[in-house]
Amino acid sequence: MLLTTRRQVCSLAAALPVSAFASSVQASEANAGAEKSPKAELSVLLYPGFETIDAMGPVEMFGNLRDFSMRFASLEGRVVKSAQGLPVMTEKFEMENASPLLLVPGAAPAFLPKDPRFFEMLKSAAQKADYVLTVCTGSLLVAKTGLLNGKKATSNKKALPMVMKAVPQVDWQKKARWVVDGRFYTSSGISAGMDMALGFIADRFGEAEARRIAGFTEYRRIADPSDDPFAI
Amino acid sequence: MLLTTRRQVCSLAAALPVSAFASSVQASEANAGAEKSPKAELSVLLYPGFETIDAMGPVEMFGNLRDFSMRFASLEGRVVKSAQGLPVMTEKFEMENASPLLLVPGAAPAFLPKDPRFFEMLKSAAQKADYVLTVCTGSLLVAKTGLLNGKKATSNKKALPMVMKAVPQVDWQKKARWVVDGRFYTSSGISAGMDMALGFIADRFGEAEARRIAGFTEYRRIADPSDDPFAI
Repeated sequence: MLLTTRRQVCSLAAALPVSAFASSVQASEANAGAEKSPKAELSVLLYPGFETIDAMGPVEMFGNLRDFSMRFASLEGRVVKSAQGLPVMTEKFEMENASPLLLVPGAAPAFLPKDPRFFEMLKSAAQKADYVLTVCTGSLLVAKTGLLNGKKATSNKKALPMVMKAVPQVDWQKKARWVVDGRFYTSSGISAGMDMALGFIADRFGEAEARRIAGFTEYRRIADPSDDPFAI
Repeated sequence: MLLTTRRQVCSLAAALPVSAFASSVQASEANAGAEKSPKAELSVLLYPGFETIDAMGPVEMFGNLRDFSMRFASLEGRVVKSAQGLPVMTEKFEMENASPLLLVPGAAPAFLPKDPRFFEMLKSAAQKADYVLTVCTGSLLVAKTGLLNGKKATSNKKALPMVMKAVPQVDWQKKARWVVDGRFYTSSGISAGMDMALGFIADRFGEAEARRIAGFTEYRRIADPSDDPFAI
């Protein structure tokens, strides 16, 4: 089984602190290390026209955790271009490769997937994941599978009127940088995904780890999920 | 010639303001538009182990300009993986495809290129570009070509002692989110590239455009290049 359990993911929080700039250097040398700690894994589900930083902001933050791996998956398993023209080589999504952490980026309305097969894939991946994280209109995609019904969630504040109308069964939050409801983390627009990722890391791997990564990335983090400078 | 002149790049600032969330939708429909405005182009020079957000932060910001295109180039022209595991499909760098804007991301020291052919490519691309933008230790790479000799520049603050020792001919700035010296924009670590990109956009395309993109991306921007929360 490739899935690690929630407990295994959390146990990474016990890893030793490493000086910030050295961490990715050490990570590249870590394969030769003595004890193998359980590997946490994030799958990023991509589709044509996804917003670059929705995906890559969290990838930067999670990717600086120790002993962490990343998958980039899509419906078709080919090169997928972001709205900004970034061509990412993806693998075809297969259920046996589903990760315990799932990241769903958003997109401008015109680029949001419409293919029913995309939503079947998304629902299966989200049901299997321990945690589902969405950025921007990524929450609308998960909402359309029905999995957010009755749950608190948020989205890009400019898109929120459209999102609320599309799936009124969700308890949409109008002022939140990100929202946690059980195993669902949903964030506001685009760069809010970086704050949510650090918030998730603080919750699951410890606040010290979130601070280390924010410091390493020289990122002026919003650490309070209710601090939403872009609420309308 | 694929190169647009400095004047052509600036003329984009005259484009009409568009409501934020609609911009990328409109961009996808813009090909059918009446008048063709000159296209600005950014080349992102990638190498194995580059830091994800060093490249993708500016890509997000530039990619939300109107009528803007992006190239992802490398020495070998194949899939290049970031330190965080992001596989980007690149084209082999060719001088005839060199862009007026060049972006050079940084990396942790262990991942910085050593191949002399990389530095030949970088020097040629930087000499041909109207503007060269670097993030984090990307400035060290450009400094090694000699093009920053006698110029003000900055880098990741944790890497700065190593960077200053490696190329002492550069006037390294210890406290700066980013530094402008002529056609060289160099930024501090990782997420500082987003602020520098917005600073460049403000300089060349107008402050209103920088604000529109920061608002669209819900990014709490550092707009003052001397505001460096990570200076040691």
